[in-house]
Amino acid sequence: MLRTHTCGELRIDNVGEEVILTGWVQRLRDKGGMLWIDLRDRYGITQLSFEEGLTPEALLNQARELGREFVIRVVGKVIERESKNDKIPTGAIELKVTKLEVLNAAKLPPFMIEDETDGGDDLRMKYRYLDLRRNPVRRNLELRHRVMRETRNYLDGLYFIEVETPVLIKSTPEGARDFVVPSRMNPGEFYALPQSPQTFKQLLMVSGFDKYYQIVKCFRDEDLRADRQPEFTQIDCELSFVTQEDILNTFEGLIHHLFQKVKGVNLPKMPRMTYADAMRLYGSDKPDTRFGMQFVELNSLVKNKGFKVFDDAELIVGINATGAASYTRKQLDELTDFVKRPQIGATGLVYARVNEDGSVKSSVDKFYAPEDLAEWAAAFNAKPGDLLLVLAGGKDKTRKALNELRLEMGTRLGLRDKDTFSALWVVDFPLLEWDEEMGRFHAMHHPFTSPKPEDLELIDDRPSDIRANAYDMVINGVEVGGGSIRIHDRRLQEQMFRLLGFSNDEAKAQFGFLMEAFEYGAPPHGGIAFGFDRLCSIFGGSDSIRDYIAFPKNNSGRDVMIDAPSPISDAQLDELHIKMRNITAPEKK
Amino acid sequence: MLRTHTCGELRIDNVGEEVILTGWVQRLRDKGGMLWIDLRDRYGITQLSFEEGLTPEALLNQARELGREFVIRVVGKVIERESKNDKIPTGAIELKVTKLEVLNAAKLPPFMIEDETDGGDDLRMKYRYLDLRRNPVRRNLELRHRVMRETRNYLDGLYFIEVETPVLIKSTPEGARDFVVPSRMNPGEFYALPQSPQTFKQLLMVSGFDKYYQIVKCFRDEDLRADRQPEFTQIDCELSFVTQEDILNTFEGLIHHLFQKVKGVNLPKMPRMTYADAMRLYGSDKPDTRFGMQFVELNSLVKNKGFKVFDDAELIVGINATGAASYTRKQLDELTDFVKRPQIGATGLVYARVNEDGSVKSSVDKFYAPEDLAEWAAAFNAKPGDLLLVLAGGKDKTRKALNELRLEMGTRLGLRDKDTFSALWVVDFPLLEWDEEMGRFHAMHHPFTSPKPEDLELIDDRPSDIRANAYDMVINGVEVGGGSIRIHDRRLQEQMFRLLGFSNDEAKAQFGFLMEAFEYGAPPHGGIAFGFDRLCSIFGGSDSIRDYIAFPKNNSGRDVMIDAPSPISDAQLDELHIKMRNITAPEKK
Repeated sequence: MLRTHTCGELRIDNVGEEVILTGWVQRLRDKGGMLWIDLRDRYGITQLSFEEGLTPEALLNQARELGREFVIRVVGKVIERESKNDKIPTGAIELKVTKLEVLNAAKLPPFMIEDETDGGDDLRMKYRYLDLRRNPVRRNLELRHRVMRETRNYLDGLYFIEVETPVLIKSTPEGARDFVVPSRMNPGEFYALPQSPQTFKQLLMVSGFDKYYQIVKCFRDEDLRADRQPEFTQIDCELSFVTQEDILNTFEGLIHHLFQKVKGVNLPKMPRMTYADAMRLYGSDKPDTRFGMQFVELNSLVKNKGFKVFDDAELIVGINATGAASYTRKQLDELTDFVKRPQIGATGLVYARVNEDGSVKSSVDKFYAPEDLAEWAAAFNAKPGDLLLVLAGGKDKTRKALNELRLEMGTRLGLRDKDTFSALWVVDFPLLEWDEEMGRFHAMHHPFTSPKPEDLELIDDRPSDIRANAYDMVINGVEVGGGSIRIHDRRLQEQMFRLLGFSNDEAKAQFGFLMEAFEYGAPPHGGIAFGFDRLCSIFGGSDSIRDYIAFPKNNSGRDVMIDAPSPISDAQLDELHIKMRNITAPEKK
Repeated sequence: MLRTHTCGELRIDNVGEEVILTGWVQRLRDKGGMLWIDLRDRYGITQLSFEEGLTPEALLNQARELGREFVIRVVGKVIERESKNDKIPTGAIELKVTKLEVLNAAKLPPFMIEDETDGGDDLRMKYRYLDLRRNPVRRNLELRHRVMRETRNYLDGLYFIEVETPVLIKSTPEGARDFVVPSRMNPGEFYALPQSPQTFKQLLMVSGFDKYYQIVKCFRDEDLRADRQPEFTQIDCELSFVTQEDILNTFEGLIHHLFQKVKGVNLPKMPRMTYADAMRLYGSDKPDTRFGMQFVELNSLVKNKGFKVFDDAELIVGINATGAASYTRKQLDELTDFVKRPQIGATGLVYARVNEDGSVKSSVDKFYAPEDLAEWAAAFNAKPGDLLLVLAGGKDKTRKALNELRLEMGTRLGLRDKDTFSALWVVDFPLLEWDEEMGRFHAMHHPFTSPKPEDLELIDDRPSDIRANAYDMVINGVEVGGGSIRIHDRRLQEQMFRLLGFSNDEAKAQFGFLMEAFEYGAPPHGGIAFGFDRLCSIFGGSDSIRDYIAFPKNNSGRDVMIDAPSPISDAQLDELHIKMRNITAPEKK
């Protein structure tokens, strides 16, 4: 190679050696006849030194003309530093340079290549290749690599086999919107990019592959929110001859392995919570269990005392914000404003402080006697200094709003530390959810999820109450993975499609191959998929998956660095048998 | 799990244990009051036994009703077999079944699930999930998994970092045809699927990632030949601060590692051959060096003897088919027909046999005296029993034709054994190739390949003679990988684009981001990509990459199992701002 060592490699033991280094000029200091350069590569920083009088003048001048981010190659002798730097592994030595070659010059970067940069999001995305030079960004991708590697180590150790499934597949209307690819060789027809390899991994089970996994790109043409990307990566897994319990244990093991190997953290056994309990106690199917503050339902305690808001409400439910009794009027007003935001939608907030003497002071004192409030405090197991926050209204909406308030209070009270990890399984999801707009059921997970056998009798009268053999893994309030035991019986699968409003013809056209496969000896099987980008962001302690993707797209689905998507030529369109509809000019990029 | 053991696990030591197995019914034998079933899963086969009189009648009847490929679960006791089967690891024991549960019935498969099947290609592709049950097919994918795993082990060990690059990128007219994806959010614009992550991996070098790899899907919308797939997998690599020699050694090491770990084969050091030598000695830039039969040029020997064909030819060149002097007239006629095929295009074949007495008998005896022919034999270093085969004509075309003939003779003489491996590097490729049709130069590798500095002076007068820092790895006549040292200087890259006929605007519109990146401190870098599917096929000894892909497409780019591509709805087209051109009805599938 053009170097003998990397910039992270030299130590005091190397003193006296002649070495060659290559890298980027991070910083120059020219002071009192000495010139120091910090030379950087992926592996670290090594200090180069030049000294007036000792260093030949031509070389010194050459060094003085270097700019930040110049790529250079230096030959020199390793010497012990006078003032050592304990903060970096190479801090005991420096390189006394005898030869310098500029491999490439560099214009002044549009933002500082430092851990803390002055570059805004847009600028850093346009020059992502420079942003990737910064340590925190590079470390995120190194973390991603480690998580990927340890995932494979764990699964390979359990005899899983990684199989690549196709990217050019078939569009199906179920689920999110597909990206499609016009076929040149098959005029009028399109491939779709997979939203997940679901049907293929099930077919691999029919094939007897027994234990499959794949770390695989998936695609969804959805309107992008902050934490969504049109292309994302999944750890996709499927097993045969398993029960739900086998799957939970296997993949709890995976996450334990990853935390151990990547973070050095030993997670405790993950509790299992039913969907019903999660909704009742946290108002969410992905509860952040780093902190308690579980919901307490007050219906039996607070009705019929003359407070119309509670009397009319389907559900009155609150949380105990432990130790927050000192909240000021202003802070309480902020919380009220918070819950009244349109996206949260509560009509108001009732609060009650537990004073130091044990007495309770509430915002509804005129309806409730001190002894009533004492009963509230007891229901919340509240102590002096606690603040009770109560919402009322329709059940689903109120739980949802209180979930938001609980998370807000968790944040305000510092209970959501990024270095604390709380993982659990949420199980027994409903099989179906009712789509008000479409007037029909949707599969809550997907149409291949099996119902619990004991709930099948509800299929005609109370289909909403059927529970599925479905499960999600939740860490710190984020759903990191989910899966189910699948249907492996053709008749049950047909029944499921009917329930979801498919005609027989539609079901056959779209999933005929899968249902036919079920007739040739399909084993019982189930699986799970983890959102790999999100998992990495949790390991790294970031809220954004974008920080863990080398070349992410922005919220309009654009790669602003390469400027994609972009128009294509008429000849390309012709070959693909398509033309553009009349459209207004493409939006300004 | 639903089982205690797999079907490949039980041994003589397990005798006496009560176990539970699950799997597929491979075979039933009902004879003399005994019923045996071979139960199969991914891991092996275990024999189940039932015995009239001992096995409860209901259970026996239940077992007798099983069909091939039924999925069952059995409880039983491991007993020692009376007649052992040495051919399978479980052959010393069998399972005396006490309980049987049918997990799923199976229709009669459309072809035999056996190592040798009666199913034709089309049928096996339509029911690929059944084809994948067959041992040879499953073993191919297990091999693929191992090659993938060992590739990662090797590269991780050298501090390469795997980085995922985007799948939704930008269409560029250079190279093969792109698959494109209409953007819903950016009307009138399209993403393209990557033909390779070329520009991204170069940007990662600009970012200082130093050593990158990725095992990654790539896409080419080409007319499919037998050994092409629209989506294929690459081992994609790039390194900074390296010379060509570093790259050759690093990746020769990878292939050595893979052969050692996956095949148990120790390959010798790979010779390096220049492109010019490869063309001169083998008429191909991917010579099959499992056998010699190098070209011998005869121009100086055979001209001006009155044989017009040779006198008029630019090149007269032949091979020595060692030991083939006994070829009959009929066989020689076959060879003549072979070289005259339109796709080979020779006008005729001259041959000369070396007889046992050392005399030479040729098809052109009337032009050449015995002493002339003796000179031929000497030039070929021919021995009694050898057959010389000579072609004549234009240089390029004749070399190409003789390459085909050489390979044909290699096959006929049994010199192309699939278990023999001969690998080499072909280096010093030309930078450019002239495209007669377009009347301009193409980049032989791609436009980012760097010219050899010492050849740069030829740029104005003899650009065709510029050699590139480009290299291919060839195994058994197959190009398994190729790469180059890249350009990392903006001005040289611009010069290259001009040479390839790009206007400044075109170059900037398509690759402006890369050229801009070169101005911010781009290190010298280079890389390589291996065709992963092809590499697996070589390991497995097959001519077809399709055998190593779980769900391949046919020659029309169709997945006949899921029936993709397929029409999409008008609503989808509308959302994507496109419509179909008037086309004739989609071809019959």
